[in-house]
Amino acid sequence: MSETISLAHGGGGRIARRLIEDVILKELSAGGSDGAAAPELALLSDGAVLHSFTGIPVMTTDCFVVTPQIFPGGDIGTLSVSGTVNDLVAAGARPRVLSVGLILEDGLPLDELRRYLQSIRSACEKAHVRVVCGDTKVVEHGAADRIFITTAGLGELVVEPAPGPWRLEGRTDAAVILSGTIGDHGVALLGCREGLRFETSVESDCAPLADLVMPVLETFGGAVLCMRDPTRGGLSAALGEIAGQAGVGIDITQDRVPIKPAVRGVCDLLGLDVFALANEGKMVLIVEERVSEEVVSLLQKHPLGRDAAVIGRTVKRSGRPVHLLTNLGVRRPLEVPLGETLPRIC
Amino acid sequence: MSETISLAHGGGGRIARRLIEDVILKELSAGGSDGAAAPELALLSDGAVLHSFTGIPVMTTDCFVVTPQIFPGGDIGTLSVSGTVNDLVAAGARPRVLSVGLILEDGLPLDELRRYLQSIRSACEKAHVRVVCGDTKVVEHGAADRIFITTAGLGELVVEPAPGPWRLEGRTDAAVILSGTIGDHGVALLGCREGLRFETSVESDCAPLADLVMPVLETFGGAVLCMRDPTRGGLSAALGEIAGQAGVGIDITQDRVPIKPAVRGVCDLLGLDVFALANEGKMVLIVEERVSEEVVSLLQKHPLGRDAAVIGRTVKRSGRPVHLLTNLGVRRPLEVPLGETLPRIC
Repeated sequence: MSETISLAHGGGGRIARRLIEDVILKELSAGGSDGAAAPELALLSDGAVLHSFTGIPVMTTDCFVVTPQIFPGGDIGTLSVSGTVNDLVAAGARPRVLSVGLILEDGLPLDELRRYLQSIRSACEKAHVRVVCGDTKVVEHGAADRIFITTAGLGELVVEPAPGPWRLEGRTDAAVILSGTIGDHGVALLGCREGLRFETSVESDCAPLADLVMPVLETFGGAVLCMRDPTRGGLSAALGEIAGQAGVGIDITQDRVPIKPAVRGVCDLLGLDVFALANEGKMVLIVEERVSEEVVSLLQKHPLGRDAAVIGRTVKRSGRPVHLLTNLGVRRPLEVPLGETLPRIC
Repeated sequence: MSETISLAHGGGGRIARRLIEDVILKELSAGGSDGAAAPELALLSDGAVLHSFTGIPVMTTDCFVVTPQIFPGGDIGTLSVSGTVNDLVAAGARPRVLSVGLILEDGLPLDELRRYLQSIRSACEKAHVRVVCGDTKVVEHGAADRIFITTAGLGELVVEPAPGPWRLEGRTDAAVILSGTIGDHGVALLGCREGLRFETSVESDCAPLADLVMPVLETFGGAVLCMRDPTRGGLSAALGEIAGQAGVGIDITQDRVPIKPAVRGVCDLLGLDVFALANEGKMVLIVEERVSEEVVSLLQKHPLGRDAAVIGRTVKRSGRPVHLLTNLGVRRPLEVPLGETLPRIC
């Protein structure tokens, strides 16, 4: 097999078949029955029949166009699994299976593709999900930027009613919990962007959160009212959307929000709003006040939830939906940002 | 709202939200409860909870990178629904819901995006499927070619055991049925390619085949042994894959394969192999011989199956997996093509 992707790899013929069998299926299947390739994937049929699926399905999808594709803490492969898995988790579902759609640029080195597939496999193993179907297309050099990945995920609803903003309506004094530090992904990406390079030890937080959050859902069930992963637009966008959809207010106490000193330093230096920076391995959980401390304790037992904390609460709305109680004692609105600080952050 | 897509439309903030609500959700929802937007989509949450889903789920995904995006007979929107719906149908499932992932190039006219969304809606209505979740990303000008769409589909298995190549093992004398003419999509695309333009009245056949094929599955159940939609790589690739996976031989009688005179003319003129050209609205159905005439009659009752015909049968393999019995009385191997005649055909 040639050492780079060519247009023929995207045709429906024998060359495409070899790419699928000798590279994609092979990398995803490494690790055997613990690998990321479900038996359904190996059939290479038009659709994967999910005989062992039970419960109420929850579906989600995400496109990944991050640049650079490899960054401190992960790559587009890690991200493509983490993002979709975390959306399922946020919706109250146990992630079960993924589809993976690859759009490849003619000339992409095969070894680079292998790396991303290995990252997909590794993230799938961590999240206990399998890839059941996929598609690969190739476009001419210059018609795409190396690789775009679109994953769709299917999970099983863990608790009914499902958590969501609608469960917050009219509820004040629910506790807003954040599972860890914010801004890590945004700063890590910023640090390796062409023309923006600066020295930072900050790594992306991108990780699938199934193992962190499922025990909370299983233990506290309906007391988990709403969850969202604060990705593009950061914590500001996530809280603003929840408050907007629920019709409640949210007050956040600034000095309770975990932020790494290195992230704070970069934000101060460059004048960035850390609340608008993207995260790819964090979860906002809004829970009944009575269980909040127990939820935080449970989250803290997992390495990905070490810095979990109650950062605020829902309140009767007055003025703007979300407010930040600053360290200086000021209550200022936390607005949903107009756009993302950086394009192609995920 | 500005008249073209900009990078801010891909952020997680208010501008992105307006694109989603005022353009994407609006176009997909046109037609009201008959539109393509499921109630779950309007919630704009992380995952769509599919309460009304029953049965065994079947999942599939496809990426669409066709160029030009608009072609005689359809556009990338039509294709993105048809391709995924037809994969579900081929797997023996009733298509139920879709996810839609959009990767947009900075500068794409909003009206062009609206057109594709309208095509998605129209194709969804024809296939009786709804969009339940989606994602939109924007990349810089030059980092993608206008628009790429990745859809994933979820359907409910209609018949058990599911049709598939494994059901053909050891079976000879099963009838190979084709639902209509081949080569239409390939020739239509070829006719409007930059640098290849030629006069042809041929339109792409792209269409969702749920209404055509579901009655066959419902009526004949387990007698439908295997199905596949002959897309990239054409009929040659579809038959070659089936025969390869099933371990049987397939003999096709050339003059029974429906081909439009205009398609035959273009193929003769340009020296193209019509058996390797892509189709986007055709189905190969391999059924028990005893029901083959009834299946053809049922298919012919639907406008999309007017030209349906028995084109061959499964045989004990001798030599190459698939053979063509030519009009000259010769039996020649029909090989899986090495690649696709044209890149970015779908």
